[in-house]
Amino acid sequence: MTTKYDVLGIGNAIVDVLTTVEDDFLTSENLIKGSMQLVSEEEASAIYDKLGQCIECSGGSAGNTIAGLASMGVSTAYIGKINDDQLGKVFRHDITALGASFDTDAAKSGPATAHCLVLVTPDAERTMCTYLGACVNLTVDDIDEDTVRASKISYMEGYLWDPEEAKEAFRKTIKIAHDAGNKVSLSLSDPFCVERHHEEFLKLVKDGVDILFANEDEIKMLYGTDDVNEAARLVQKDCDLAAITCGAKGCIVTSKDEIGHVQGRIVETLVDTTGAGDLFAAGFLYGVAKGKSLGECGAIGNLIAGEVITHMGARPDIDLKKFVEANS
Amino acid sequence: MTTKYDVLGIGNAIVDVLTTVEDDFLTSENLIKGSMQLVSEEEASAIYDKLGQCIECSGGSAGNTIAGLASMGVSTAYIGKINDDQLGKVFRHDITALGASFDTDAAKSGPATAHCLVLVTPDAERTMCTYLGACVNLTVDDIDEDTVRASKISYMEGYLWDPEEAKEAFRKTIKIAHDAGNKVSLSLSDPFCVERHHEEFLKLVKDGVDILFANEDEIKMLYGTDDVNEAARLVQKDCDLAAITCGAKGCIVTSKDEIGHVQGRIVETLVDTTGAGDLFAAGFLYGVAKGKSLGECGAIGNLIAGEVITHMGARPDIDLKKFVEANS
Repeated sequence: MTTKYDVLGIGNAIVDVLTTVEDDFLTSENLIKGSMQLVSEEEASAIYDKLGQCIECSGGSAGNTIAGLASMGVSTAYIGKINDDQLGKVFRHDITALGASFDTDAAKSGPATAHCLVLVTPDAERTMCTYLGACVNLTVDDIDEDTVRASKISYMEGYLWDPEEAKEAFRKTIKIAHDAGNKVSLSLSDPFCVERHHEEFLKLVKDGVDILFANEDEIKMLYGTDDVNEAARLVQKDCDLAAITCGAKGCIVTSKDEIGHVQGRIVETLVDTTGAGDLFAAGFLYGVAKGKSLGECGAIGNLIAGEVITHMGARPDIDLKKFVEANS
Repeated sequence: MTTKYDVLGIGNAIVDVLTTVEDDFLTSENLIKGSMQLVSEEEASAIYDKLGQCIECSGGSAGNTIAGLASMGVSTAYIGKINDDQLGKVFRHDITALGASFDTDAAKSGPATAHCLVLVTPDAERTMCTYLGACVNLTVDDIDEDTVRASKISYMEGYLWDPEEAKEAFRKTIKIAHDAGNKVSLSLSDPFCVERHHEEFLKLVKDGVDILFANEDEIKMLYGTDDVNEAARLVQKDCDLAAITCGAKGCIVTSKDEIGHVQGRIVETLVDTTGAGDLFAAGFLYGVAKGKSLGECGAIGNLIAGEVITHMGARPDIDLKKFVEANS
């Protein structure tokens, strides 16, 4: 079968609700800066009531990555669960407007489309409270076999391990992709997410993941080490390709026979780090899709991550295709 | 009765859906650059389908003005019609989060909360397509008499003349306000809006408006003249106070015994002019509320308008109270 998509993203379909807060607010709400915390609808509502004016913008980790790839002209598809409500329509519009194929049926009843309160502190760090809403209804039935078979890379976010039903969807995807000779990619998403699902993630990385994305905290948590270089050597054994993002320092990239550090780019106006990891993955996978070298993949990842942190929101607000061409 | 609010805003309660487009897009959709066009739900949907990724942000002309005033610490209230849907909740959250009182009941059925497609071209000009939705259900019953009586200034947008039922609400407000010895303010909103309701607007300005806001095109259309200075002299006779915004050139301000031009401020990064007029009105009314001179009111209007055009969206994204203090 010929492949139709370079990258298929599977994730929690979420609309972000972004605002700025002071550090004190995180303390008073017992939120851990930089983390993603799952909250109930009531908890989300109680926090929202205390926030100032917000802007709404499509989000979701894999959704952001696919949006970035689509903006770079890469052929993409997305699978995720929305409700057939106003925010669901916003999510569907935004990801398809960039060119991604998104055919997952919206739920006609049940919980609302997921939203994530993204609290940006003056240091540009983001702290997230996610109400999973309709995402809990993503099941194996939503994984369209033809789409997975038609995708060179199936990219999934670790956050999918949070809604119970999505795990099976995740495992089904791996089997279909590998049976078709395609690749599976995973982002570890969040250190607390790695902590919540540690054993399963480790098994997954060893047995089912070809291309892994993680930041320093996540990879160290996964391999139970304080040494990022040791973690890099361990992931090199487990995965064909891996990229470990190290914030402003850039990234460590590994393949079966290479390991190296790619220097980060200087970003002049740091506004909001939301989506930095997601857009790094977009840039890296763009490089993979275009057959670039390991170092070039890391450099494009750094470039795209460096763009998204210059403005509020986790989706590109410029034409990334032109941006990549102008900067490479 | 002691007044509780400095300014009450009455307007179409709208959530903006913002995106950037090229000039060609406006041409192909037969949209007049810089204008506001009313569209049906189907027309709005057809245009939305052709747009790239958007961000959602509370809007509405009077809503933006009240948000600006609230952000400056002025005591405010708002009356406008939302539906009890997701976007309605977003609108209510955002205006109350800034401190405005907003007690209008949401419609439990009928059309969805209004939205406005705001198309920003590379020259930072905005062109708007508004689906009025739930706004058509604003009636005289929504005008809370106590709130109008308790407000020193009742500020209304000319756009209220578009949904039929709102006209009566408008007229009721004028009567209550004047009977209580309070002031009535009007923004002419849009030259095509003035054209649509020309005779009624002229009568309104002569008989019922104490403080008028208009831009050059609107005031010239109202008085049927090509000379903005002549229009200024005419409005001086009709209203206690008036402010005519002239884009980057600043504004012309008039009172019964003064008329003058207040130089505009240089704005370094012009991004999106959406809300410039609304936030000018906020700055000017802040000056009125604080007992500033006519020239100072115009200067604060210019200052606040100059802030909102440096970012996407028509709501302030900084603390305007601190901004005014730092710049005056």
